[in-house]
Amino acid sequence: MRDAYHEELDSLTDSLVEMTRLVRSAMARAVTALLDADLRLSEEVISGDENVNKIDAAIEATVFDLMARQQPVAGDLRTLITALRMSGDLERMGDLAVHIAKTARRRHPESAVPPELQATVLEMGQIAERMIAKTGSVIASQDVEMGLELDADDDQMDRLHRRLFDILLSPKWRHGVEPAVDITLAGRYFERFADHAVHVAENVVYLVTGQRPEEITELP
Amino acid sequence: MRDAYHEELDSLTDSLVEMTRLVRSAMARAVTALLDADLRLSEEVISGDENVNKIDAAIEATVFDLMARQQPVAGDLRTLITALRMSGDLERMGDLAVHIAKTARRRHPESAVPPELQATVLEMGQIAERMIAKTGSVIASQDVEMGLELDADDDQMDRLHRRLFDILLSPKWRHGVEPAVDITLAGRYFERFADHAVHVAENVVYLVTGQRPEEITELP
Repeated sequence: MRDAYHEELDSLTDSLVEMTRLVRSAMARAVTALLDADLRLSEEVISGDENVNKIDAAIEATVFDLMARQQPVAGDLRTLITALRMSGDLERMGDLAVHIAKTARRRHPESAVPPELQATVLEMGQIAERMIAKTGSVIASQDVEMGLELDADDDQMDRLHRRLFDILLSPKWRHGVEPAVDITLAGRYFERFADHAVHVAENVVYLVTGQRPEEITELP
Repeated sequence: MRDAYHEELDSLTDSLVEMTRLVRSAMARAVTALLDADLRLSEEVISGDENVNKIDAAIEATVFDLMARQQPVAGDLRTLITALRMSGDLERMGDLAVHIAKTARRRHPESAVPPELQATVLEMGQIAERMIAKTGSVIASQDVEMGLELDADDDQMDRLHRRLFDILLSPKWRHGVEPAVDITLAGRYFERFADHAVHVAENVVYLVTGQRPEEITELP
């Protein structure tokens, strides 16, 4: 049986996983809102971010409370600080979904995404959604192998991000500056979202193995 | 006389201030590189970021070491975690200066900034430099009043950021998509740089007063 302290540590993990669930859902809806120019969905994502922020604040309060009351030693201390960091990354990922939703709202009733970019943006959204889903699984299961997979997903996001610029900067681009500005920012939001997912997974890998992912040549 | 433990806490503050100094210098050079299309300066900023990252890593190691050895209680614990967070923000600000330097390098030997935007970008750079200089002073002096000033600087940055878009999206814009993409990204980097400076100052204000800046109606 686990004592109250370790139950509180487990509840931190549950809260982090719940954040990934909310962020995944927000990102899925933000991408749909962006592609379909769906104002109602954008508004949902924007107002729903409060729930992510509340969990972040609750995690911070719990961590400070546990630290003050329990005087945890090295291993648990690292777990607690890592929880704070993961929570910070996930909170920021929620903000990035909000930024994408705001891009959709700003351009409504038009779509911010010209037809020749719809497939690329859809794919970036799918990778983002897959990455945050994996992040949740990695936090819940401490699955190092899946954690390391996120690097490959991130590489794929970077490739799509470059393709976005290739299309924007091609002589065939006929949509002018305003959609180019929107797409430039949206691309940046997807890229940062992926970076934060990698960062969360790196923290889990580090907690489990004591090594940063770049130091791992063979799986434990 | 201060004991070894409190001397180590002081040395953390010194390291944070040193980070702000390096980041301020990087940002100043990145902005000059951007406006003047100066390749040598861009390269300096890009390679110099390693020094910022090293201090960030040293601060993290010191904080973990102090926590493990000293079992600090509530107040000191908060100081240590806040140092970690400030270090993370400053490290990120160094990255943003690098992003601006890379924008300059990518467009070399041309300037990434068309003539009608030079004044606005220069002003954004000056505000960024002022904000990181104030951040350093706030960390060193724990001056709450100066910490709260950063909000006004951030508002000014936001106004300039909007002006940037007004110029980009005006019917008079004659530079096409590529410079618009560069400027959109550079604008975003300045804006995020300012956000991180505000965040660092908020952490100092919180350490000193126990209140988040938005809760403060009168200075202590």
